[in-house]
Amino acid sequence: MATITYPNHMEIDHGAIKKIGMALEKNGIKRPLICTDKGIIAAGLYDTLRNAIPNDVEFTTFDGTPPNPTEVAVKDALALYRENNCDGIISIGGGSSIDLGKGVALSVDHEGPIGNWSTVKGGRDSIGACPPIIAIPTTAGTGSEVGGGSVIITEEGHKVVIASPELLPKMAICDPDLTLGLPPILTAATGMDAMAHCIEAYLTPVINPPAAAIGLDGLERVVTYLKRAVEDGQDKEARWHMMMAASEGAMAFAKGLGAVHSMSHAVGADPVLKAHHGTLNAILLPTVLRFNAPHVPEKMKKIKAAMGLSNQDDISDWILSYSISLGLPRNLSEIGVTKEMLPGFAEHCMTDACHFSNPVQPTVDEYISMYMDALNQ
Amino acid sequence: MATITYPNHMEIDHGAIKKIGMALEKNGIKRPLICTDKGIIAAGLYDTLRNAIPNDVEFTTFDGTPPNPTEVAVKDALALYRENNCDGIISIGGGSSIDLGKGVALSVDHEGPIGNWSTVKGGRDSIGACPPIIAIPTTAGTGSEVGGGSVIITEEGHKVVIASPELLPKMAICDPDLTLGLPPILTAATGMDAMAHCIEAYLTPVINPPAAAIGLDGLERVVTYLKRAVEDGQDKEARWHMMMAASEGAMAFAKGLGAVHSMSHAVGADPVLKAHHGTLNAILLPTVLRFNAPHVPEKMKKIKAAMGLSNQDDISDWILSYSISLGLPRNLSEIGVTKEMLPGFAEHCMTDACHFSNPVQPTVDEYISMYMDALNQ
Repeated sequence: MATITYPNHMEIDHGAIKKIGMALEKNGIKRPLICTDKGIIAAGLYDTLRNAIPNDVEFTTFDGTPPNPTEVAVKDALALYRENNCDGIISIGGGSSIDLGKGVALSVDHEGPIGNWSTVKGGRDSIGACPPIIAIPTTAGTGSEVGGGSVIITEEGHKVVIASPELLPKMAICDPDLTLGLPPILTAATGMDAMAHCIEAYLTPVINPPAAAIGLDGLERVVTYLKRAVEDGQDKEARWHMMMAASEGAMAFAKGLGAVHSMSHAVGADPVLKAHHGTLNAILLPTVLRFNAPHVPEKMKKIKAAMGLSNQDDISDWILSYSISLGLPRNLSEIGVTKEMLPGFAEHCMTDACHFSNPVQPTVDEYISMYMDALNQ
Repeated sequence: MATITYPNHMEIDHGAIKKIGMALEKNGIKRPLICTDKGIIAAGLYDTLRNAIPNDVEFTTFDGTPPNPTEVAVKDALALYRENNCDGIISIGGGSSIDLGKGVALSVDHEGPIGNWSTVKGGRDSIGACPPIIAIPTTAGTGSEVGGGSVIITEEGHKVVIASPELLPKMAICDPDLTLGLPPILTAATGMDAMAHCIEAYLTPVINPPAAAIGLDGLERVVTYLKRAVEDGQDKEARWHMMMAASEGAMAFAKGLGAVHSMSHAVGADPVLKAHHGTLNAILLPTVLRFNAPHVPEKMKKIKAAMGLSNQDDISDWILSYSISLGLPRNLSEIGVTKEMLPGFAEHCMTDACHFSNPVQPTVDEYISMYMDALNQ
């Protein structure tokens, strides 16, 4: 049975941030809480937003979003929300600010620890109405602007996923001009995250042809435009297509994700390594695709075609070369992973939600073997 | 500026009609009005639905949907809705039953002639909340189950379009088994309608990459499966893919449509010819594509690739042969169109909404010339 739902209202264009007034009005928001971080303020993007907000809108700003959003930060932002009698949220930033905004929106009318509303505790069904969120991404990678999910670190230090159509931003304002100043290395890492979403989503066994088609389209865009965006951050055309590709990646993963993500989540949970999610996905894609390929030969042909490769080309080699050419690390060793860590990571993979939507479920030994490949590839 | 919104919750699978109980419960419908027609009852599809509805649901049935839904029929159905204190609508049938259901849903809380709420009178903005609609298509063509638009003939005899996100069915239950008994000629005509949607939507200049990708995917499905569904109505796999392709066609035409549709609407409005919309689209596609091709060479390449044609192949010739092989008429003469009618049709085209989203706007003379091509091709 294929259950197909589609996301939200998106506005995408150079200068789309000027649509913020319309977005607020359309959603009846008069006193928004802006969720962002200090990097966005330093980069001048917050000022761009502020200048675009109509004069009669009384906004409040929370700029304390951590790189990985926490329940503590959600509570701080919620206090500001209540204090200023806010009636909706504008999230501007990378996935963190958008995820934090979802945590705040949830907490307004849902009491108790945030973990009580997690997907594993049945949150998808129990989460009721939440105040409206307007999402304005400033990277092109996570696609959180078109999804209803959010990852929050609880007060006990656990990463939990909250997800509901209620948390889907009412509008995604995708203004690629906000990404013109994104440094090459972050452009590369977030862009490879989008590539991983497009490929992994396409490969899951979940039947959702529209999402699959969107994934292949996003993949073609990443292959065509990511390198251009990395080499010239001011390439507006490339930035537009990468912004689109990132949203498409997230639309596609309505189909779920696979072992690249289960493996990436395991390494990403290590508090010492502090590895970047997109970078990890880039490193792990080649080995996981080698593992998956024999199980999904027809889909691999379609993926190669979307990438402009022939069916004889080695897709894993191609992705590794592409990723290195973008300035990303070649293997897990380069980011501090050691052989001793691998069994623990492999165990972690076995319970990750993405493990179950890979074309076939790897065993612990197969995970270790893939990690070994990625360690010194 | 690309404005991208996406449609509704879809359930697609053999036997998906069993989801009706879930659909009613999820949308709080306890006393639905079923909108259908006598053909659906004769074909046994109404019984299939009735058997799938939970026992505690008190439904009322309106079976008087005309082939082209009218305001008069909407009023009759509305009277039943009010009399039985209904709280939602189930539409089961082709585009007509689904469009009629939308008319009823609109009329419950929107007074005055239906024409007052048409898109040309600003209905898209003025239409407020409507009761929920569950749409169950029994043909694979119009895609009305994933759209918020409806065409109704007013009491004055005008065809008006009403459209609003409020009229988008809350759930589309796409059960390809309901199409197993659809006769070959109707399978062919409705299937070619889906093809026209996919191609025309892809060609419009509106920027909406996800919708474009979905259109190409739907097109590939039509080319692969329509002939199989026509030649063997019991081919369940082909029926599944055609059902999906039809919905994808309608998802794609979030991008708008083009001159095939403006020309088809003009002929279709003739009360004597009573020409089938899908049949007209099939006849008109070849000549319109010949007209459009020089203006959109890159897009034509992508369309040909999705169809499995080489860039050297003549797409118009291919479509004409395909359509004839499905048993559809070769040209407009065969369905009673004469040369004298063409100038009137061409004038009609110039004000049709689809005229404006064609890659370039044909002149009256160009329309006449295309009609001439289609008259005796």
